[in-house]
Amino acid sequence: MADTASADAAEQVLASRPDKAQLIEKLVAKLPEHVILHAEEDLRPFECDGLSAYRVLPMIVVLPETIEQVQIAMQVCYANDVAVVARGAGTGLSGGALPMENGVLLSLAKFKQILDIDTANRRATVQPGVRNLAISEAVSHLGLYYAPDPSSQIACSIGGNVAENSGGVHCLKYGLTTHNIVELEIVTVEGERMTIGSEALDTPGYDLLALMTGSEGLLGVIVQVVVKLLPKPERAQVVLAAFDDVRKAGEAVAAIIQAGIIPAGLEMLDNPAIVATEEFVHADYPTEAAAILLCEVDGTHAEVDEHIADVREVVEREGATEVRVSRDDAERAIFWAGRKAAFPAMGRISPDYYCMDGTIPRKALADVLIGIGELSEKYGQRVANVFHAGDGNLHPLILYDANIEGELERTEEFGGAICELCLEHGGTITGEHGVGVEKIDQMCVQFPPDELTQFHAVKQAFDSKGLLNPGKAVPTLHRCAEFGAMHVHNGELPFPELERL
Amino acid sequence: MADTASADAAEQVLASRPDKAQLIEKLVAKLPEHVILHAEEDLRPFECDGLSAYRVLPMIVVLPETIEQVQIAMQVCYANDVAVVARGAGTGLSGGALPMENGVLLSLAKFKQILDIDTANRRATVQPGVRNLAISEAVSHLGLYYAPDPSSQIACSIGGNVAENSGGVHCLKYGLTTHNIVELEIVTVEGERMTIGSEALDTPGYDLLALMTGSEGLLGVIVQVVVKLLPKPERAQVVLAAFDDVRKAGEAVAAIIQAGIIPAGLEMLDNPAIVATEEFVHADYPTEAAAILLCEVDGTHAEVDEHIADVREVVEREGATEVRVSRDDAERAIFWAGRKAAFPAMGRISPDYYCMDGTIPRKALADVLIGIGELSEKYGQRVANVFHAGDGNLHPLILYDANIEGELERTEEFGGAICELCLEHGGTITGEHGVGVEKIDQMCVQFPPDELTQFHAVKQAFDSKGLLNPGKAVPTLHRCAEFGAMHVHNGELPFPELERL
Repeated sequence: MADTASADAAEQVLASRPDKAQLIEKLVAKLPEHVILHAEEDLRPFECDGLSAYRVLPMIVVLPETIEQVQIAMQVCYANDVAVVARGAGTGLSGGALPMENGVLLSLAKFKQILDIDTANRRATVQPGVRNLAISEAVSHLGLYYAPDPSSQIACSIGGNVAENSGGVHCLKYGLTTHNIVELEIVTVEGERMTIGSEALDTPGYDLLALMTGSEGLLGVIVQVVVKLLPKPERAQVVLAAFDDVRKAGEAVAAIIQAGIIPAGLEMLDNPAIVATEEFVHADYPTEAAAILLCEVDGTHAEVDEHIADVREVVEREGATEVRVSRDDAERAIFWAGRKAAFPAMGRISPDYYCMDGTIPRKALADVLIGIGELSEKYGQRVANVFHAGDGNLHPLILYDANIEGELERTEEFGGAICELCLEHGGTITGEHGVGVEKIDQMCVQFPPDELTQFHAVKQAFDSKGLLNPGKAVPTLHRCAEFGAMHVHNGELPFPELERL
Repeated sequence: MADTASADAAEQVLASRPDKAQLIEKLVAKLPEHVILHAEEDLRPFECDGLSAYRVLPMIVVLPETIEQVQIAMQVCYANDVAVVARGAGTGLSGGALPMENGVLLSLAKFKQILDIDTANRRATVQPGVRNLAISEAVSHLGLYYAPDPSSQIACSIGGNVAENSGGVHCLKYGLTTHNIVELEIVTVEGERMTIGSEALDTPGYDLLALMTGSEGLLGVIVQVVVKLLPKPERAQVVLAAFDDVRKAGEAVAAIIQAGIIPAGLEMLDNPAIVATEEFVHADYPTEAAAILLCEVDGTHAEVDEHIADVREVVEREGATEVRVSRDDAERAIFWAGRKAAFPAMGRISPDYYCMDGTIPRKALADVLIGIGELSEKYGQRVANVFHAGDGNLHPLILYDANIEGELERTEEFGGAICELCLEHGGTITGEHGVGVEKIDQMCVQFPPDELTQFHAVKQAFDSKGLLNPGKAVPTLHRCAEFGAMHVHNGELPFPELERL
């Protein structure tokens, strides 16, 4: 049986109580003093990531300025058995960068340089703290862009994108982060520097590049990234199709893909989402529709013409009650305005919302949406659905009021039930937000013990002491057993010191 | 430091001398007798794969008919510390399926069923022994196909494609095998069955699917594959462009990509290859050209029109002496006929040829081709180049006569020098043929000890006894040290019992 020693080691690390003053002394001995933060007011900005319901003050923050400083910080922590949580922009939605009160938070925020742009090979070499959108901005004048576009792309960093294998509206056509990077520089838990992947087509040996991508900071610290750049499409155009029935909209999604069209993006909003966004941004969405689809096609002028006609034909055949096609880029921007404002729009109809993230096979779309509606009635809580329909990546937004006693807990239970619904339909518990601390118990539901054991064996191959981001992403079998696995709700937090706000 | 115990274990396995009669007895006790072959005449067909210069008679061949039988065979071998080499169609070119005289050859040849075709999700579930082309043939009537198309696609099996992460002419646009599969069933070295990946967009946990793909049979036995299907493009058209200078042809390749065109295929033939194929198939190639490019564009009718015009403009600007565009599918087939017949055509101009496989960044294409020309003069051996220019995947064919004393050895030395040339230009030692036994020493040149150590640690996580395909793909540090690494030629064979023909 594969080795799970790293899981036991991680449990020890979680419970450890290192001496803060001593560790500061050891770090200061080898690193410039200004890169080490330890006063409470300096630590406060790092206490949470985008999953703001969970907060922990880190013991120490290290803000290195060079790869050598990252190596030194890792060497000191390794020698002293101190846990390390690496952090990019801190925009993650599953608590993957949540600090530990007994660990070091290693921020890559100062790694903000674009180091090289290679137009002949269409590659850019960037530091991990570079914002996702900054890459596309830097190469825009060359007619190029970086394809993965998570909603947070203005703020999120490429290092975090790699750690989470981020997606976005356009990943249906252009793939996830893992399909858009070719080489990484990492620093290992022992402080060694290593290059994985290469700029050539395929690299012999095991695919450590793909293994590192989406590993949520558990296998190494990303200190440099070589990304692929794509030519900007000549043109993009959007079809907005309204339906009087969620099932018809779900079936239209499958029909578009089945027709051989690969849209650049294919998004769905259901009625609560349409109404909320319409009130907020006035994008002229049909507020009586049960659901709308936004289907973007990009490519050459001629290609776009052909595919837009195809999409129109399919959605009409599938019973769309109204079909609009953007006539120019200004109108295209208006079509998208509602979708892009959908999350903030929820703030107008509910004090709080909880954004779920699950993935299902496309064919199950209609059934799962109807199932979510039934759960909404059962739990007595409203849900708005705004999501990447084309790749079956759901984002149900559960509306709640945190000031009402017990409503957060009920919301989390509802969220857990949605995860299970996705799994029942052959889906996964997370599409693009990662597992982090948020979904760690659902991992026990998705994976049988032998696969979890295999995950721990892989972890053992990179981090036998279990120091990198312990307690996140992959639950121990012990935890799953305690949890009474196979039927799971968002429940216990993995950190004894964790306060819930 | 990461764990290399599996490497030591594999060395022991390589040197082991299991009792054949006893092992047969143990297998026969649990498996139908007809699935176990052990007479010399039955073993002979399995003695080599596509790298026919190396041959070894396996101790025993197991030809299971069900996944349960694969599990039993693995359990027996695991309990008895016997090495296992899994084999698909045996068309690999690097000796990855070369048997061991002290090991079991596990053939998946009887796993030939296409189990499910799911048009809504554009997926097919197939057994590993299904031929690559058989998948496309089975879904052709639905307007779909499976994209990766290695030259051996008539014969090679999908399980082998996964093990080697196979490419093909169209992988420039459609990706390698790793980009075209979503789920695998594997049997572990201990005989457990495990599902990795999923039909949904992205799976949480480490990306074991990508890790398994291209792992050359060292991490598990592939017993089922879920592949992606793509819609067949409406139309494809080819530009043939001739150049009077190899450098200009190489630069035209970079210019096409830089212009934002992603061709479905972009192949190059140099003059020796042109002349040889022209004499063989009369495809009307310009025999006086230093090099020709074949650039295929596919997509909608309109898209193809636009891109073909763009390609023509680029190659003319880059100095093409002649440009032809296929007028219909018949002419397109003629344009490709020469390329497809290039390998057999070599048989007319040389008794033997050695097909190399290396990858370089596209921008280095012209320099590396000129470097190969210089090496050809140095070694006094002719080379013909026929290759996937678009993704920098070279296939130099070194012409030689095995009947001339020492010429095979000189050819292998020449091949090693080409590998090093690729590495000097930022490339890799293999593009799509794998490492196997052929390139194992070049791995010492490409990878520093810390990355090789990391590879062994990953192996340890899956196969701590080192029983799966030992001696292939990843060299031990010990081997690299003996080899005097950092300057390597095809040299010692990893198996003491290996005879060279």
